Amino acid sequence: GRWAGCLRGRRCLSMAKSKFEYVRDFEADDTCLPNCWIVVRLDGRNFHRFSEQHEFKKPNDDRALHLMTKCAQTVMQELEDIAIAYGQSDEYSFVFKKKSRWFKRRASKFMTHVVSQFASSYVFYWKDYFKDQQLLYPPGFDGRIVLYPSNQNLKDYLSWRQADCHINNLYNTVFWMLVQRSGLTPVQAQDRLQGTLAGDKNEILFSEFNINYNNEPLMYRKGTVLIWQKTNQVMTKKIKLPKEAEEKEVEVTRTRTKVVPLHCDIIGDQFWEEYPEILAEDS
Amino acid sequence: GRWAGCLRGRRCLSMAKSKFEYVRDFEADDTCLPNCWIVVRLDGRNFHRFSEQHEFKKPNDDRALHLMTKCAQTVMQELEDIAIAYGQSDEYSFVFKKKSRWFKRRASKFMTHVVSQFASSYVFYWKDYFKDQQLLYPPGFDGRIVLYPSNQNLKDYLSWRQADCHINNLYNTVFWMLVQRSGLTPVQAQDRLQGTLAGDKNEILFSEFNINYNNEPLMYRKGTVLIWQKTNQVMTKKIKLPKEAEEKEVEVTRTRTKVVPLHCDIIGDQFWEEYPEILAEDS
Amino acid sequence: GRWAGCLRGRRCLSMAKSKFEYVRDFEADDTCLPNCWIVVRLDGRNFHRFSEQHEFKKPNDDRALHLMTKCAQTVMQELEDIAIAYGQSDEYSFVFKKKSRWFKRRASKFMTHVVSQFASSYVFYWKDYFKDQQLLYPPGFDGRIVLYPSNQNLKDYLSWRQADCHINNLYNTVFWMLVQRSGLTPVQAQDRLQGTLAGDKNEILFSEFNINYNNEPLMYRKGTVLIWQKTNQVMTKKIKLPKEAEEKEVEVTRTRTKVVPLHCDIIGDQFWEEYPEILAEDS
Amino acid sequence: GRWAGCLRGRRCLSMAKSKFEYVRDFEADDTCLPNCWIVVRLDGRNFHRFSEQHEFKKPNDDRALHLMTKCAQTVMQELEDIAIAYGQSDEYSFVFKKKSRWFKRRASKFMTHVVSQFASSYVFYWKDYFKDQQLLYPPGFDGRIVLYPSNQNLKDYLSWRQADCHINNLYNTVFWMLVQRSGLTPVQAQDRLQGTLAGDKNEILFSEFNINYNNEPLMYRKGTVLIWQKTNQVMTKKIKLPKEAEEKEVEVTRTRTKVVPLHCDIIGDQFWEEYPEILAEDS
Repeated sequence: GRWAGCLRGRRCLSMAKSKFEYVRDFEADDTCLPNCWIVVRLDGRNFHRFSEQHEFKKPNDDRALHLMTKCAQTVMQELEDIAIAYGQSDEYSFVFKKKSRWFKRRASKFMTHVVSQFASSYVFYWKDYFKDQQLLYPPGFDGRIVLYPSNQNLKDYLSWRQADCHINNLYNTVFWMLVQRSGLTPVQAQDRLQGTLAGDKNEILFSEFNINYNNEPLMYRKGTVLIWQKTNQVMTKKIKLPKEAEEKEVEVTRTRTKVVPLHCDIIGDQFWEEYPEILAEDS
Repeated sequence: GRWAGCLRGRRCLSMAKSKFEYVRDFEADDTCLPNCWIVVRLDGRNFHRFSEQHEFKKPNDDRALHLMTKCAQTVMQELEDIAIAYGQSDEYSFVFKKKSRWFKRRASKFMTHVVSQFASSYVFYWKDYFKDQQLLYPPGFDGRIVLYPSNQNLKDYLSWRQADCHINNLYNTVFWMLVQRSGLTPVQAQDRLQGTLAGDKNEILFSEFNINYNNEPLMYRKGTVLIWQKTNQVMTKKIKLPKEAEEKEVEVTRTRTKVVPLHCDIIGDQFWEEYPEILAEDS
Repeated sequence: GRWAGCLRGRRCLSMAKSKFEYVRDFEADDTCLPNCWIVVRLDGRNFHRFSEQHEFKKPNDDRALHLMTKCAQTVMQELEDIAIAYGQSDEYSFVFKKKSRWFKRRASKFMTHVVSQFASSYVFYWKDYFKDQQLLYPPGFDGRIVLYPSNQNLKDYLSWRQADCHINNLYNTVFWMLVQRSGLTPVQAQDRLQGTLAGDKNEILFSEFNINYNNEPLMYRKGTVLIWQKTNQVMTKKIKLPKEAEEKEVEVTRTRTKVVPLHCDIIGDQFWEEYPEILAEDS
Repeated sequence: GRWAGCLRGRRCLSMAKSKFEYVRDFEADDTCLPNCWIVVRLDGRNFHRFSEQHEFKKPNDDRALHLMTKCAQTVMQELEDIAIAYGQSDEYSFVFKKKSRWFKRRASKFMTHVVSQFASSYVFYWKDYFKDQQLLYPPGFDGRIVLYPSNQNLKDYLSWRQADCHINNLYNTVFWMLVQRSGLTPVQAQDRLQGTLAGDKNEILFSEFNINYNNEPLMYRKGTVLIWQKTNQVMTKKIKLPKEAEEKEVEVTRTRTKVVPLHCDIIGDQFWEEYPEILAEDS
């Protein structure tokens, strides 16, 4: 065969290089337009089925939500230039800085690093949140990338996801109350909710289940925002000064930046006024 | 705030829909050109460091190679339309059929499903291959997508990767012999190999270490090819015929298709002649 | 102002270069996938109105069709690597060779060179075809680019355009007969043809106007195919041999390649068998 | 042949539609990212040669520059949503509004409409500027498209082109003085200018040719900016009032928007402060 002769020297190497390497030219350039926010949104694959097989509590499973957030934190820490992330249900959005030059802004790099780091973390940290509940198989995720030229476009994107969180969570909260407490079948519950407005759903929750939706946990209603925050760590350190015989304890303050989860509104202006550095021009 | 008023009904929902949903239009269409082979290649992120921290045997660690192949098999079984895969070292290439209509051929779907399924499988199956060796942190992978219009282009792509496997493995085999057996430092070994041809490296292996490179395991020299193969499973089944009193044992043959690893040459014509269905027009 | 100081030396030049030149990075790479046929199709802009204002003969105006073909020939001669072109009505498709490396296969270059050369030629050669009929304003054209990976895909593309030519021309031939000869209004003619099949239209032409559609000019029914053909030009040249007193006339044959229009079927196999070099692998 | 049978009815039509029409799916979506400025820059093809063959005056030919501007005005008037254009030498940039929805923001439509309209106009209006100087052949142009997310990016793009105009024009002015007045050959002139700074060139112009570069025509030094301006046309109209016997003359003011050429600096802030509507958010 052709290959056998290949082990004998220069001809083979240069052949391998010159003869096949042209296939590299078929790779397309997928550089993201500069000066735009780069958003990667990740979604669980078939998580409806996954959540049933792993007995997720409905409508919200704290273990699952906290695991998602743990994975998103890992993504933010491991990858470069993520300014903010937002998650709800089985999805998470990661926002890379406008000026990021990470991997020359190649879209495929952003997407695949995010989803692979998230997916491996999901299995790695599973047991920290689900304890004895075994993970039955390795889950899949998909991802997409979108560019937003202006700060307003980016804020509207995040508002869109948080509005979606609200709409879905309100629906799910009533739906599962009707199923779990009133004994309706899923189809009956769905029929009951057909065509109802937010006000109607709030009313059902209040009058039939004595639930004030506004008192439901913020994490369910608002999702999770991940931002970078500076924290001062005060540590006690022992130092021995040259001319003194004994060690001395001193307090040292170290500033570290870490990823912090919030469950607040990001649709109104207040959040963005409180954390102006997220959208700052040099970010 | 704006959002508070949102819980009260129709205005909120329609606002959420109409006001923010325009951001969906920023998502670009990334459909792959029809009638081309779609290749997704995945690479381990920082696997040099990862392999050291997890004490991979050099130059080849069977546990690591088999785990990679297990993950690739999972990818082939879970996703649609993968005709063949090829892996070596910390990389794997997946070839989707020319005619695949999976996810409307959206590039981001192909890339992210492959790498996320691979990454979660890597952690999930780790312990099956590494036993007591703990996984220290969740690894990352990156991926890229390339289109090949003709069968020849595709074969040349796979040949390129297998030629790369050969070149790297020959180099690594000598390099680690010089380090592990002759006691050279990595820098000394590198200097020694500087400018040598394949023939020179074979000669070093033979004269100094009594190794015939051609007798090294095929998996190291050729990498791993994954293809679909029909297998006949013969099972014994007990059936009770209506008019007979006793059960009877019968043999049932069931044809199943499964993913099979090979370690053969794919640069020459022989492989493609043996498995013509891989490149078949209707694939 | 900032600019005034610019005339005084090095600072200005480097400023101009370094300060603004970053905007070049916003230009996207639009390289066409290698080893695919590149088709640029051009269409007249608002040619319905243009044809009325310039009193084109209906349903086919020979002057307009010949002018289109003259422009297409100019495009083929001026640009590189066009293997074949096909035109009908106010559209023309140009097929660049699979292996073309013209302008590094940048899509924008292909599209804009084709349409600009065509547009300037249209005005330049107008008077050669329309004589005293003045051109009232400069016409516009649009263009698009499509890649075809296989020869079959390319042939099907050209077949699609020729089938379109046939369908439109048959319709238009009957439509204008009904208007010009039977005195129907355009709306009446349209109503009459609503829902008719090709056979019905042939029947109307034959029974009402004594026209056998198959005898209509090929250029109308099949459109125009432009291909490269070698031609032998026999020229008489006078040469004076050193030792002879008088000049002698000799015949010299020079082979030239020129663009030739055909009006034949390109849907069946015959055309492609007759001109195999068009699709030849090295083209 | 296959095609002959086609004229006989339904089978043919549906065949044409269903059998070949799949080729439309190969057309890629080339929608421009929303909320970005869309710039199309056009360049003359081989205009160095073109200018020599048509005896353009060096370094600047007023006829050629005015013809370029006439074509650019035609482009602005014929196409939609062009906010501003800038031209110099044989290039012109057209800036489409951020919010433009023209042709669904398809890049190919923007590029090809611009260059084809420009090219046909160039031939159409040639004689108005070049009088007896015949146009020898139809010229070609190429075009490219670039997106700019922010107003600053757009202003920097236009500054880049105007800085380029300045640098080239200063060089060309000295170069042609050396050739035309001092009798240097082109190569000698080039050598003389090798490595000189802007200040050096100004000095040569002043000391050797008594030319103050700053007094050179603005059109040469700054290029041409095209913007939309409202103009009031005062017309005298005759009207006959119902109850009066005689016609009366009244003055009617009609506001029209037209394309106006300027030769001013667009690098500093002054221009943008004077014409804020160009960059206005709703544009």
